[in-house]
Amino acid sequence: MDSSDIPRKKIAVIGGGLVGSLNACFLAKRNFQVDVYEARQDVRMATFARGRSINLALSYRGRQALKAIGLEDQIVSQGIPMRARMIHSLLGRKSTIPYGTKSQYILSISRENLNKHLLTAVEKYPNVKVYFGHRLLKCSPEDGLITVLGSDKVPKDITCDLIVGCDGAHSTVRTHLMKKPHFDYSQQYIPHGYVELTIPPKNGENKSFTCTLFMPFEEFEKLLTRSNVLDFFHKYFPDSIPLIGEQALAQDFFLLPPQPMISVKCSSFHFKSHCVLMGDAAHAIVPFFGQGMNAGFEDCLVFDELMDKFNNDLSICLPEFSRVRIPDDHAISELSMYNYIEMRAHVNSPLFLFQKNIERLLHAIMPSTFIPLYTMVSFSRIRYHEALLQWYWQKKVVKKGLFFFGTLIAIGSTYLLIRSMPPRPLDYLRRPWDWVANFQNTTCFPANPLESLEQTLKVISWG
Amino acid sequence: MDSSDIPRKKIAVIGGGLVGSLNACFLAKRNFQVDVYEARQDVRMATFARGRSINLALSYRGRQALKAIGLEDQIVSQGIPMRARMIHSLLGRKSTIPYGTKSQYILSISRENLNKHLLTAVEKYPNVKVYFGHRLLKCSPEDGLITVLGSDKVPKDITCDLIVGCDGAHSTVRTHLMKKPHFDYSQQYIPHGYVELTIPPKNGENKSFTCTLFMPFEEFEKLLTRSNVLDFFHKYFPDSIPLIGEQALAQDFFLLPPQPMISVKCSSFHFKSHCVLMGDAAHAIVPFFGQGMNAGFEDCLVFDELMDKFNNDLSICLPEFSRVRIPDDHAISELSMYNYIEMRAHVNSPLFLFQKNIERLLHAIMPSTFIPLYTMVSFSRIRYHEALLQWYWQKKVVKKGLFFFGTLIAIGSTYLLIRSMPPRPLDYLRRPWDWVANFQNTTCFPANPLESLEQTLKVISWG
Repeated sequence: MDSSDIPRKKIAVIGGGLVGSLNACFLAKRNFQVDVYEARQDVRMATFARGRSINLALSYRGRQALKAIGLEDQIVSQGIPMRARMIHSLLGRKSTIPYGTKSQYILSISRENLNKHLLTAVEKYPNVKVYFGHRLLKCSPEDGLITVLGSDKVPKDITCDLIVGCDGAHSTVRTHLMKKPHFDYSQQYIPHGYVELTIPPKNGENKSFTCTLFMPFEEFEKLLTRSNVLDFFHKYFPDSIPLIGEQALAQDFFLLPPQPMISVKCSSFHFKSHCVLMGDAAHAIVPFFGQGMNAGFEDCLVFDELMDKFNNDLSICLPEFSRVRIPDDHAISELSMYNYIEMRAHVNSPLFLFQKNIERLLHAIMPSTFIPLYTMVSFSRIRYHEALLQWYWQKKVVKKGLFFFGTLIAIGSTYLLIRSMPPRPLDYLRRPWDWVANFQNTTCFPANPLESLEQTLKVISWG
Repeated sequence: MDSSDIPRKKIAVIGGGLVGSLNACFLAKRNFQVDVYEARQDVRMATFARGRSINLALSYRGRQALKAIGLEDQIVSQGIPMRARMIHSLLGRKSTIPYGTKSQYILSISRENLNKHLLTAVEKYPNVKVYFGHRLLKCSPEDGLITVLGSDKVPKDITCDLIVGCDGAHSTVRTHLMKKPHFDYSQQYIPHGYVELTIPPKNGENKSFTCTLFMPFEEFEKLLTRSNVLDFFHKYFPDSIPLIGEQALAQDFFLLPPQPMISVKCSSFHFKSHCVLMGDAAHAIVPFFGQGMNAGFEDCLVFDELMDKFNNDLSICLPEFSRVRIPDDHAISELSMYNYIEMRAHVNSPLFLFQKNIERLLHAIMPSTFIPLYTMVSFSRIRYHEALLQWYWQKKVVKKGLFFFGTLIAIGSTYLLIRSMPPRPLDYLRRPWDWVANFQNTTCFPANPLESLEQTLKVISWG
C-alpha cells in the first residue's frame, strides 16, 4: 500500500503482548510512527512470567490476521494441528469429537513463542519503536497525552495522535475511558479457576502436552495437600496420572494458585478520534471457545479493513470500529460463556453427541446453508454476531425438522397400518405432503442465509 | 466511647466530600489516626466547582448518621422541609403528592453548605488531618500503601492500616480493587441527563428554588439555541418561565452541558482488612429516590455499628460490611432505577395516584403492617433490601385484595339480585364468607412482617 501522501501521525500502542505487537505491525504498514509501550521486559530476553495460559488455539480468524502481515506460514509451521476433542471416560475409554471436517484443524500455539515472533516482526519496521519495561501510569485521550514510567523511574509525558489500548483484561487505558460519560462497562468473574499441568515428552521425543484443569474455586480450596491432589486425580482422572507422573503432578499442582477467569464488556471501544481499545482490553472473554486471541487478532484485521475503506481517517474509523465490532465481540463473549456451561454440563451426554452428529450430517448435505456453530466460529470469518443468529436459526430448524420427521414417521406408520386394512379414501392424509412441498419452497433455506444480518433476522422472525 | 486500650491505627480516608468527611468523624471518634485526602481545594475557601447537583434531599437515614456524630440538629436547622411533590399540568393546574404523613418531610440541603459543616466538624478532632489539593495517584491495598500528589507535584508514598475509599462514582480506590480477582463490577449510564436552573428569590426574600430538568440526551441535543430553549419551555413548562425569567432561563440553560447519571454496582465493598469502599465509590445510584447521600451516610453508620459489635476488629468488620451492606445498597440501586422509570411514565397517571391513595389508606389502617415504599425508604431505617421485599409482598396483597373485593362486589350484587327473586336455598353462597374469615386468620398479616428477612421471604414464597 502506498501511503506516502498521508502525514505521518504518531500512534502509541499500549501493550506489547499478542494483540499489541500484531496491531503495531498493521499500523506500521500504514506508515504511521508507532511507539509500543510494554510494562514487562522483552519476552525474548527475560524468563517468561507465568500466570496466563501458556497454550493457545489459533484458528481461522487469527490466521487471516497473521496472513495480512505476512506471518501466517511462519507461525502455522510451528503450531501443532488439533483435529478433535478427546473425551476420556472414568473407565479409561476414549472418544473423539472432531472440531470440523477431516481437513479442518485448529493449531496449538505457544503464547511465548508467538509473542517473540510478533515482536521480531514489529521491530523490522523502521517506523516502529518498542519500549520495554515502560508502564502506563495514566492517559488523557482528549489531550493525546500519555504518562509512562520507564526504568529511570521518572514519569514521562508523551503526546500522540492516537492511543491504542492493547493492554489486556485489566487495561489501564480502559480505566481512563471508563471515566468518560456514557461508557457502560461490566466485568464478571466466573466461579471456575484453572491450573495448568504438563505431560512431559516420551521416548526422547520433543512432544509435551499442556493439560488444564478447570474447576470451581471452592473445589480447589479443598485440595490442600499433595495427597489430596493425588486422591482427587485417582478418583476423577486416573488415566492422566501415569502420563504426568505422580511426583510431578503433586508438585506442579501447587506451583501457582488457581487462575481466575474474567469476562469484560464495554459499550464503546473508542473515544473520539483519540483512543481505541482492542483485544482483551476491549472484550476479555472466558476461554471456552478458544477465541480470545483470535477475536483480538480479528479486531486488528477489522480495523485495518476500515482504515482501507475510509482512507486512514481516524475520525471515521474509530466510531465505525465500535459500531461494527461491538456486536461481534459481545456475541463471541456470549458464545464463550455458553460454551462454559455446555462444556461443563453436556460434553459427556449422548444427546450432545447426537446433536453434533446431526449437525455434521446436515453440513455435509447442505454445506453452505447449514454450518455447525464451531465451524462458523473457528473456520470462517462469518461475523460472530451473524454466526450467533445463524446458530439460533439452525437450532430452530433442527428442532422443527426432528419434530417434522417424528410426525412423518408417525403418519407413515399410520398410513401403512391403514394400507394393511380394507381400502378407504385417504384424502385427509394428503395435507402433510403438501406441507412438505411448501416447506421446501419457502425462504427457510435461502441460497446463502449469511449474506446479510437483515435477511437472517427476517428468516428468524419468520421461523 | 472509651477506646484508649486500642492501639492507634492509621486510616487514610480518600475523598473529603460528604461521605468522606462524615466517615472521618466516625473514625476519629474511635480514636484512630485519620488522614483525609481530598483532590479539590477546601470548599470553605475556594469557589464551589459546579457540576454535581447542588441540592440534596436529606431523609431519615442520613439524619440518623448525622445524629450519631452530633450534627443532626445543626444541619436540620439549615434545611428546608419538603412535604410533597408538586405536579404541574400543562394547563397550569397544580396537584400535590405527599411524601409521607402530615408530620413527615424530607429536607432540602445545599451540598456545599453540608460539606463545609462536615469538614469543620472533622477538623475539631485532634486526631484527624485533612489534606486538601491531594490527589490519589494509586493505592496498593495489600501493602497498605497509597501514593498521593500534593501541590508540590512530588508523588508521596504513605503507609496506613486501612484505606477508606469515599472518592465518589469515579473512585480511584475502586479501580485498584477492580484488579483483584473475583471483583465483579458494572457501571451503566442512563439515557437521561440533567440541567439545573434557578428560580430567584422574590420580594426581597432569601428563598430561591433549584429546578432540575431531566431529559434524554438526544432531546437535549435538539436544543441548540436560546430560542430553541424558550420554545421548548413555552411548550412544556409554560408556568416556569415567569418564575425563572426568560433571559435567565436562556442563559443558565447553557452554563453547563447536561450532566450524565451513572449507576455503579460492585460484588464486594472491601479487600481483606486493608481497604473498604463507601458511598458513591461503592454504589453510585441514579438520583430518582433522593437516596444517594442518605445511602452513603447510612454506610458510615452501619460500619460504625459493626465496629461497635466487633470491637474495632477490621478483619471481621470489613467482610461483614460487604456481607451486610451489599444486598441493601443493591436494593436501593434497583429501587432508584425503578423510580426513574416510574417517575418518567406514571407520575401523571390517575392509576398511579389511585395506588398512592390506597397505600396511604392501608398505612393509616395498619401502620405497622402496611408501609408505603417511600416511607420505608425515606422515613425509616428498615434495611433497603427488606423494604424491597416487603414492597413486593404489599403489592401482591393489594392486587389480591382488589381482586378479592372485586369478586366480593360481584357476589354481593348476585346475592342482592337473587334476594329480589323468589326465595330459594342459599347454602352455596355461604362459602365465600368462610373464606374471608380464613383469610384474616392466616399469617398473611403477621404482627411485624419486617422482623426478619427469613420471615418476609417465607411470607412471600407463601403468598
